[in-house]
Amino acid sequence: MSSKNRLIYLPLGGAGEIGMNAYVYGYGPEGDERLILVDLGVTFPDMDGTPGVDLIYADIAWLAERADRLEAIFITHAHEDHIGALSLGWPRLKAPVYTRAFTGNHAARKMEERGLDPAQVQIVDRYPQKVQAGPFSVSFLPVSHSVPESSGLVIDTPAGRIVHSGDFKLDRTPVVGEPFDPDLWAEIAAPGVKLLTCDSTNVFSPQPGRSEASVGPAIQQLVKSAPAMVVATTFASNIARLKTLAEAGQAAGRSIVLMGRAMRRMIEAGVESGVLTDFPTVIPPEDAGAIPRENLMLIVTGSQGERRAASAQLARGKYMGLELKEGDMFLFSSKTIPGNERGVLRIVNALSEKGVNVVDDGADLYHVSGHANRPDLLEVHRLIKPQMIIPMHGEHRHLRAHAALAEEAGTPSLIAPNGTMVDVTGDRPRVAEYIETGRTYLDGSVQIGALDGVVRDRIRMALNGLIVITAIIDEEDEPLGEPWVELSGLPETGSSKAALADVIEADLGQFLARADDKTLADDDALEQGLRRIARQTALEEIGRKPEVITVISRLST
Amino acid sequence: MSSKNRLIYLPLGGAGEIGMNAYVYGYGPEGDERLILVDLGVTFPDMDGTPGVDLIYADIAWLAERADRLEAIFITHAHEDHIGALSLGWPRLKAPVYTRAFTGNHAARKMEERGLDPAQVQIVDRYPQKVQAGPFSVSFLPVSHSVPESSGLVIDTPAGRIVHSGDFKLDRTPVVGEPFDPDLWAEIAAPGVKLLTCDSTNVFSPQPGRSEASVGPAIQQLVKSAPAMVVATTFASNIARLKTLAEAGQAAGRSIVLMGRAMRRMIEAGVESGVLTDFPTVIPPEDAGAIPRENLMLIVTGSQGERRAASAQLARGKYMGLELKEGDMFLFSSKTIPGNERGVLRIVNALSEKGVNVVDDGADLYHVSGHANRPDLLEVHRLIKPQMIIPMHGEHRHLRAHAALAEEAGTPSLIAPNGTMVDVTGDRPRVAEYIETGRTYLDGSVQIGALDGVVRDRIRMALNGLIVITAIIDEEDEPLGEPWVELSGLPETGSSKAALADVIEADLGQFLARADDKTLADDDALEQGLRRIARQTALEEIGRKPEVITVISRLST
Repeated sequence: MSSKNRLIYLPLGGAGEIGMNAYVYGYGPEGDERLILVDLGVTFPDMDGTPGVDLIYADIAWLAERADRLEAIFITHAHEDHIGALSLGWPRLKAPVYTRAFTGNHAARKMEERGLDPAQVQIVDRYPQKVQAGPFSVSFLPVSHSVPESSGLVIDTPAGRIVHSGDFKLDRTPVVGEPFDPDLWAEIAAPGVKLLTCDSTNVFSPQPGRSEASVGPAIQQLVKSAPAMVVATTFASNIARLKTLAEAGQAAGRSIVLMGRAMRRMIEAGVESGVLTDFPTVIPPEDAGAIPRENLMLIVTGSQGERRAASAQLARGKYMGLELKEGDMFLFSSKTIPGNERGVLRIVNALSEKGVNVVDDGADLYHVSGHANRPDLLEVHRLIKPQMIIPMHGEHRHLRAHAALAEEAGTPSLIAPNGTMVDVTGDRPRVAEYIETGRTYLDGSVQIGALDGVVRDRIRMALNGLIVITAIIDEEDEPLGEPWVELSGLPETGSSKAALADVIEADLGQFLARADDKTLADDDALEQGLRRIARQTALEEIGRKPEVITVISRLST
Repeated sequence: MSSKNRLIYLPLGGAGEIGMNAYVYGYGPEGDERLILVDLGVTFPDMDGTPGVDLIYADIAWLAERADRLEAIFITHAHEDHIGALSLGWPRLKAPVYTRAFTGNHAARKMEERGLDPAQVQIVDRYPQKVQAGPFSVSFLPVSHSVPESSGLVIDTPAGRIVHSGDFKLDRTPVVGEPFDPDLWAEIAAPGVKLLTCDSTNVFSPQPGRSEASVGPAIQQLVKSAPAMVVATTFASNIARLKTLAEAGQAAGRSIVLMGRAMRRMIEAGVESGVLTDFPTVIPPEDAGAIPRENLMLIVTGSQGERRAASAQLARGKYMGLELKEGDMFLFSSKTIPGNERGVLRIVNALSEKGVNVVDDGADLYHVSGHANRPDLLEVHRLIKPQMIIPMHGEHRHLRAHAALAEEAGTPSLIAPNGTMVDVTGDRPRVAEYIETGRTYLDGSVQIGALDGVVRDRIRMALNGLIVITAIIDEEDEPLGEPWVELSGLPETGSSKAALADVIEADLGQFLARADDKTLADDDALEQGLRRIARQTALEEIGRKPEVITVISRLST
């Protein structure tokens, strides 16, 4: 091992935001490190900043340019913010993908859906099994989270051991999957850990996290007490919760119906990968109509208010032959992710109009988080005893609070948002370099850069409306007829009460009639003039300056 | 009094939503009632549903058509969701406006700003002073809320007394304004109350509400403990809170700076109307630079993350010569209204990047709500002892829960969302009729209907992008040259790697070349064909079908 080798950590996504995780580790001579990528997830677009976009993931240009040095991709768990961009980015990376079985089931399907070879995804058993990837020896450490077979990674390098926590909580009774095993963590810590890269999501939650098993009794009681139909929603990937909900239904003598494609897929993946062996029997939605509603329990997708999910469909009206009525109960066994409040409330109010009793998690009875709270983070810090801690998986405020937590306990730390290449070879983390990072949009079938201007133009049209001007200039450089105006997203009439398009056309016609030969011969000058007049007239008429597209057709050319 | 007279209640806005309040009461023969309007407020647009819109208020068409029967408009308090549309709707209503002094200061300014006569706003003293408005005798009942001189209305009619709560809480120590006076409420209840129309905002809050005065000590302690500059934000109209914050700064020996236009205006209105007499001395922002930062406290606008407010400006960089630094403290003395989470978190994270300590109201220490909680609502129900209760000011879920609360205690109630005309003449509320209601948008300087399609077109352009096609057809009905394509909000290249505009133009050119005479002579057929080809080509190239604007110029016409 050359003393010039260094060990680096570089988050491309997920540090400084919650979503689109993508973390790089490297070992080797500076600028020639061998690399591994941990996770390649998406984040979801919204109308505010990314209208029309389908998915967002980390800009992996830096890594793609060094794809020849990329040894492997490891996926920690099957949540979209960790796995969702695998098949989008893979063609530019072309490295083998390692996951555990449940995650691999999803990964392979995603590869297949985009016409890629699912055999690129290799299933790995849990620790102590190891994957050798260049200078890295990596094993999957089982952790509890809100999806089966979630894993941290134990990454051994010539410069020491890294523990990459993944998304995790400490759960001694997780309902599905392996319980938290402090002895195992101690065993992993024993040889000494150089770096703990650690989930920061719940650093602001002051109480110790509660176990998945703790929601069971409350849900059982609630379902038992319901006089009519019960509908419950949660994240489709939270199979433990689906099981808890289904068991509560079963205990109350209800037939269970799963609704929503994502939910059926998750159960399927659970059975195929072997993590789910004893899920209560479910009946198909089409058989539910024959069952008295007080004997039915639907478990449905759409806990975040998604417009097309089963919960929204049921809130609007009949869905797959079933309709909610006065006296039914709807349980949100979930929390609302910031930004989704309006969508969720839209459903709650639509249900209220139907007379449905909505039970949400206001009292913290029917949902627990999948992330480690502040005391749990401290427990892991103490168990792992790392030389340094770098917080990940959080907005800047989370990273900052988590770094402070580590430093207060005497462990060197660093706030390293996306693009911060950190040298962890020495005793303390040290910023080596700042890499340009950003976001890539999947837009229809095309991948575009966040700064390409495409989305900016959409937002401008939405905020300002649009005027399209067409003018024809004849062979003599004289206007042929009047300019023509089409409007989109603008009021039809303004202050003068005449049609806005007509008023603008009249002003543009005057401008063309008075324009000098030089202007008429110059497309740019002409466009600029037409645009200026159109915007000025619009401002007078309707009080705003719209976007303008000008098309000048020259018959001479 | 004819036995055929009836007393009606009709919410046009604010019932089934939080925002754009507008409540009508009527008394007289059916279909010929004399009317009063209580409040005319706005709600705020968002990118999801109303991009580019400036303000939203209730569609008052029903009332405008009956403006000759409208006796008066009463404004309960100076919040935008109660007063914001007064000057927008007034020209169609033209009735005298009655308010108390502080509210009137704002109302008159709003009238003036739109070129209307501020003298239409008449200042009224509190109960027992009365305004006679046709068959209605109305007085302003002082209530506590988060803006000075908030009022309920005591509305006497030949059919009995109505108490319209307005937005209120029960606060015995409100810092600014009149404390809750149970004796006064009992006096008002004494003659018997027919109808209580009641605020429902906090019906889901199970604990009794806390007093405005309760936040003072915690804020004082916090400000005192801060080592460097302190910045605090709250709603500009919450003058009591501004005072509490300023006094905390003063007690810690800090100079107070108010930042943000809305905040300075509110203080001005408070002084002008006499409600604010002992606000601590403030210094202008330009003098703050000379003062050591540990002796400064800024009170700023933008508690909801508004991009142009002082808080956002300070989070981004220097604002009015002041800049936040590592170790400064930023206090949100406010709660985040659902839907505003992203904007607020954007600021929190930007502050985190600067090393600023952000204190929010996670622990309920530094903010109290201005609305009555569930136990307080019950207390008012008991004090007023109305014959019936109709919940208002709430989403459907709030109205439903509030109606259930009333019914459980044996008081007849009714869920009456916007457009529900309720006959309250008898012993119980009874739906008389459903009126068509909706929303009116202020869009630039123009008022448009929510269903006019203007905003729908904006949303479509934002979600789908836009293709503009121009084609010229000559005097012989033959295409002249090639069709021309402009793109907006679309990727430049798609699957074929050629410029998307070129690919579409080529396909359109082929279509035109092959089009038969009948199609070429028919604008509709031509447009339809061009649109279909353009969308199909886009789908193949970029995986989406954009909006299309087609302009066909015929040289013959």
